[in-house]
Amino acid sequence: MPSSFHTVALIGKPDAERISETITQIHQHLAGQHYRVLVERSCAGFLPLKVEACSLEDLGRLCQVAIVVGGDGTLLTTARLLVDKDIPLIGVNLGRLGFLVDISPEEVQARLDAILSGDYQLEERPFLHAQVLRDGAVLHDQTAVNEIVIHSWNATSMIEIETSIDGAFLNSQRSDGLIVSTPTGSTAYALSAGGPILHPGLNALVLAPINPHTLTNRPIVISGDSVIEIAFRPSKQFQAQVVCDNVSLPDVALSDRLRIAKHPRTFRMLHPVDYDFFAILRRKLNWSSGNRT
Amino acid sequence: MPSSFHTVALIGKPDAERISETITQIHQHLAGQHYRVLVERSCAGFLPLKVEACSLEDLGRLCQVAIVVGGDGTLLTTARLLVDKDIPLIGVNLGRLGFLVDISPEEVQARLDAILSGDYQLEERPFLHAQVLRDGAVLHDQTAVNEIVIHSWNATSMIEIETSIDGAFLNSQRSDGLIVSTPTGSTAYALSAGGPILHPGLNALVLAPINPHTLTNRPIVISGDSVIEIAFRPSKQFQAQVVCDNVSLPDVALSDRLRIAKHPRTFRMLHPVDYDFFAILRRKLNWSSGNRT
Amino acid sequence: MPSSFHTVALIGKPDAERISETITQIHQHLAGQHYRVLVERSCAGFLPLKVEACSLEDLGRLCQVAIVVGGDGTLLTTARLLVDKDIPLIGVNLGRLGFLVDISPEEVQARLDAILSGDYQLEERPFLHAQVLRDGAVLHDQTAVNEIVIHSWNATSMIEIETSIDGAFLNSQRSDGLIVSTPTGSTAYALSAGGPILHPGLNALVLAPINPHTLTNRPIVISGDSVIEIAFRPSKQFQAQVVCDNVSLPDVALSDRLRIAKHPRTFRMLHPVDYDFFAILRRKLNWSSGNRT
Amino acid sequence: MPSSFHTVALIGKPDAERISETITQIHQHLAGQHYRVLVERSCAGFLPLKVEACSLEDLGRLCQVAIVVGGDGTLLTTARLLVDKDIPLIGVNLGRLGFLVDISPEEVQARLDAILSGDYQLEERPFLHAQVLRDGAVLHDQTAVNEIVIHSWNATSMIEIETSIDGAFLNSQRSDGLIVSTPTGSTAYALSAGGPILHPGLNALVLAPINPHTLTNRPIVISGDSVIEIAFRPSKQFQAQVVCDNVSLPDVALSDRLRIAKHPRTFRMLHPVDYDFFAILRRKLNWSSGNRT
Repeated sequence: MPSSFHTVALIGKPDAERISETITQIHQHLAGQHYRVLVERSCAGFLPLKVEACSLEDLGRLCQVAIVVGGDGTLLTTARLLVDKDIPLIGVNLGRLGFLVDISPEEVQARLDAILSGDYQLEERPFLHAQVLRDGAVLHDQTAVNEIVIHSWNATSMIEIETSIDGAFLNSQRSDGLIVSTPTGSTAYALSAGGPILHPGLNALVLAPINPHTLTNRPIVISGDSVIEIAFRPSKQFQAQVVCDNVSLPDVALSDRLRIAKHPRTFRMLHPVDYDFFAILRRKLNWSSGNRT
Repeated sequence: MPSSFHTVALIGKPDAERISETITQIHQHLAGQHYRVLVERSCAGFLPLKVEACSLEDLGRLCQVAIVVGGDGTLLTTARLLVDKDIPLIGVNLGRLGFLVDISPEEVQARLDAILSGDYQLEERPFLHAQVLRDGAVLHDQTAVNEIVIHSWNATSMIEIETSIDGAFLNSQRSDGLIVSTPTGSTAYALSAGGPILHPGLNALVLAPINPHTLTNRPIVISGDSVIEIAFRPSKQFQAQVVCDNVSLPDVALSDRLRIAKHPRTFRMLHPVDYDFFAILRRKLNWSSGNRT
Repeated sequence: MPSSFHTVALIGKPDAERISETITQIHQHLAGQHYRVLVERSCAGFLPLKVEACSLEDLGRLCQVAIVVGGDGTLLTTARLLVDKDIPLIGVNLGRLGFLVDISPEEVQARLDAILSGDYQLEERPFLHAQVLRDGAVLHDQTAVNEIVIHSWNATSMIEIETSIDGAFLNSQRSDGLIVSTPTGSTAYALSAGGPILHPGLNALVLAPINPHTLTNRPIVISGDSVIEIAFRPSKQFQAQVVCDNVSLPDVALSDRLRIAKHPRTFRMLHPVDYDFFAILRRKLNWSSGNRT
Repeated sequence: MPSSFHTVALIGKPDAERISETITQIHQHLAGQHYRVLVERSCAGFLPLKVEACSLEDLGRLCQVAIVVGGDGTLLTTARLLVDKDIPLIGVNLGRLGFLVDISPEEVQARLDAILSGDYQLEERPFLHAQVLRDGAVLHDQTAVNEIVIHSWNATSMIEIETSIDGAFLNSQRSDGLIVSTPTGSTAYALSAGGPILHPGLNALVLAPINPHTLTNRPIVISGDSVIEIAFRPSKQFQAQVVCDNVSLPDVALSDRLRIAKHPRTFRMLHPVDYDFFAILRRKLNWSSGNRT
C-alpha cells in the first residue's frame, strides 16, 4: 500500500442490486490489498458481506478518500453532505458514464489501484452557497454542487425577480425561474434551459433564465467570485421555491432576499490520469454519433 | 344602428380604475347610439353609473357581440367561458396592445362604430380540449385558447411522459413539461419555451418540450386535426399538473392518460378592417426598435 | 411480377465502391425476377456488369418507378431533376438511415419485393419553387425539395431583406440569411438554424432566420399555399446568394425580387408499409440514447 | 487643464454629415479649453474648419487619449489599428447607444470635461489574435476585438473543422462555421448565434458553433488564457474563410491550421464614472420594454 490512502470510504445509494454488486466487488478488492474499508451505514445493510459500517460524518473524519458508487446525482449529494470534511472523492458509475462518476465498473479495479497508489489527476470544484435573508438575518442556507434554482411552484403563473450582481442591478425578469449554475452544473439543468457549457476549470457562474417572458433575456456568464442577490416582486400569488441541487429550501416569503455566492470550501475529485473532460462531453452529448445529435 | 348588432355585452376584469373608465366611456358611447348595452355582473358593480347587469351566461344568450376590455388574458378567459355560446368577441386593450385585444382606448369609439356597423374582419380561432382519462372514462375536461401544459409541480425533479399522435408513438421524454399550443398560444408561453410562431390561420398545433433533458427534443408542428395522447411514466415522486391556459386541472394521477385535441367549437373575433397580424407581431416583438431585440 | 411496376429505374451517385455493390445486388435481384431494369447512365459505367443504361430523362419516361440508392442528398437531387415526370421514388440508403432513404441494404430485397408487388405506403411531398424577378420578368427559377436559402456570400457582413407573405409585409431583417423550408427540409438545415420540426403531412412552410441581428426574429410557420416575396435592401456590399437545396442561382442583383411558393407538382415516395416517420425521427435525433442528446 | 491629458486625438468615420458636426463641436469645445487636438487625416478633410491633421500612426504616438466618434464598429476598428500604441479610447456615439461608444452627443461636453479632468472608470479589454499556420510558419495574422469567425464561403455546403483547446481535442464539427468571441464580442455576432453574454470583466472566451449539424454542439466558455487550434477536414469544395471582426484573411488553404489566443496587448477604454454595463445591456436588449423582447 504505497500511498497515503490507508482508510477508504465506500458510499453508494443502496437501492439497486447492481450497486451492491459493484460495491461488494470494490470492497473485496481493496480489503484484499490491506486497505481499511469503511462503508456508509445506510449502504452497508444492503451488502451480502460483513463490513465496518459508519455514519457519513465518521467516514469524513476517519478516511483519506471516499469512493462514491452511483450516478452523478449520488456524487453531488455526497459532496454536499461532506462539505465540511477534507476528503477527496472518486466517482464510479454503474455502466453509464457520468460527468463526475467517470470510472466504469469493468475497469474499476485497475483504475482504483492506480489512483490509490498516487497516480491521479486532482480536480477542485466549487460549491455554491444560498442564503435566504429575512429581516437582515440568515433564515436558511444550503450548499449546491450543480446549481441553485429559483422556480415558480406553479405552472399557472410566472415569478418576477430582481437580480443584482455585486451590488449592481442586473435586471427585473418575469419567467418560470432562474438557474445560477457552477461549471459543474452547466452540463446539467442549465444546459436544458439554453445555457452554455462552462469548462470545469473556469472561475465563473452562469445565470440562465427559465422560459423568460422577455425573449432577449439570455444566459449571462459572470465571475465565480460575484455575489448575486435576488429579490421577489409581488405577483398575484407568491409561489417561489428555492432549490439547491435537488434540495428544496422551506418556506421562502415574498419579502425575503436570496444571496448566492461561492461557498468558501471546495470539493476535490480524484480522476484517473487520463481523465479528459472533452472526451466525456463528446460521449455524453453524442457528438460523434453521425446523427443530428 | 345599421347592423345586426343591437344588444352588446361589455365585459372586463373589474380590478383597476382605468378599466372602469374605459368601460364607462364605451357604455356611454354605445348607449348614446341606441345600442342596448348589458354589463357583466362582477364588472358592473365597479362602474360609477347605473347599468343593466347580467351573468356571463345571460350575456352569451342575449347579446349579438361582446366587447372585452383588458389584456389578452381577460379575452382568452372570456372566450373559454363562452365556449358554448355563439357570440363573437371584440378586444379592447387598456393602452398596451395585445395579440387579441387589438383596439386601443384612444381609438375605441371610431373602431367600435365601424365594426358594429358591419365593417370588420371576421377571424375564427380554435380551442383546444383536454380530457383526463381514468379507467376509460373522462374524469375531467377543460378547454384552452392558448395552450395545454403538462408540467412538473416541483422544480426538484423532471416528469417523464410518453406522447402519441393519432395513435403513433412519438417519443418518451424527461423534461420540466410539454406545451401543446394553438397558433393563438404560439406567441405566448410556447414562444418562451423556444417554439415557433404559427400564423393564426394555420390549422396546426405545436408541441414544445420545456427544458428537455434530451437536447434534440425540439418543437414539433403537427396538423390541427391530430389527437395527442400522453401517458405518465413512474418517477420517484409523481407530481404532474395539467394546466389549460391558466386553469389547473385537479388531481391527475400517474395512471391517468391525457387526451388533447381541437375542441369542436371555435371562437370568433371581430377585428377592424385594417387588422394586420404581422403588424402586431412587429410591435409586440420590437422588430423595428433598431436594438438587438 | 404481380404489380403494375414492370420497368424499374436504378439511380445512384456512382462515387463509392459501396454504392456500386448495392446497386449491382439490386439489379441482379430484380433482373432475376424478370423486371426490366434500366440504370442511369452516369451510374451504369461504374457497375461491374452489363446493364441497359439511360439518361435520367429517359428513365423518367420509360419506368414506372425509380429506386434511388445513396443518401438523402442523392434522393432530393433526383426528385428535383425528375420534377416533370410522373415517377414515384423508393429510397435505399447505404447503411446509414436517412429521412428519405429509409430502406437499409440488409433488408433491401425483401423490402423491394413487397413494395413492387403493391405493398407500400404512398407519400406525396411538395416542391418549393423560387423565381428571381427582374424588371417584372422571371430571370431564373429553380425547384427545391428541402429549402430555399437567401444567404450572404460573405461572413464579414449581414444582408438586409424585406419579406412579404401573400402581399402583406412581414418584416425587414438583418441577418446571415433566411431559410424557407418545406416539412421535408425542416429536419435538415432549418433545424440547425433553430426551426421546428414540421410533420411531413402538414401543408405548411417555415421561415427560419439565420443568426438574426434582432434576437426576437423567430421561426414562423405559415400555410403551404402562401406566396413569399423577398426584396433586398441596399447595404455596403451587395452579396446575397439564393440556394435551392444545394444549387446556387447565378447572379442575383440588389434590385431583383425573389418569389417563393409551392411548385404545382409534387413528388411521390413509396415506403414500406411499416414506414414510421416518428421512428426515423427518434433514431436520427438519438432520442432514446439515454444521453443528453 | 488639470489632467495628464494635454494632446487629444479625434477619430471618426467621415461618411456622414452628422459625424462631422459632432467632431467639429468636440474640436471647438476642447480647443477652447486649451487642449491640443489632432484629427485623424481621412476625417479632417471632411470638417468645415482648419485642424491639425495626422495619420492614425502619429495620433497613437503623439496623443494621450483618443476620442472615437461613431458606432461600435468604428471603435473596434480603431482599437485594432492602434493595437501597438498605449493610448486609451473614449467612445462617443451619434445618438444611438453602443456597447463601447457609451457617450451620447447631447452630453458629450460635460462627459469629456469630467473624463479629461481625471474623473473616469478605466476598463481594460482583451484582443484576440489569429494566426494562420502553413508548414509550421505564420502565414497571416490579425487581431480582433469582438470575434474571430471561421466560416464557409458558400451557403451550399458546410465546413468541417477539428478544434483543440490547449492541446486537448475538443471536437470535430460540421457547421456553417465557428465563432471564437471575447466578452466584448459576446453581445455582437456570437449572441445572434446563440452564445451567452459574458461579463466584460471575465477572463474567458466563448466558442459558439454556427448552425451546427449536430444539434448538441453548444456554446462552450473556456479560460481567456486558452490557446485554440483549428484544423480543416477535406470536403467536396474547400471554402473556409477566416474573419477577424470585419477583416477577412486572404487565402486560407485546406492544410493550414489556425491558432487563436488572446493577444499580449489589451486596449483601454475611459468611461464616465457612472458607466454601467448592465444598464447598457438593459437598453440594448430592450429588457424593460414590457414587450416580449
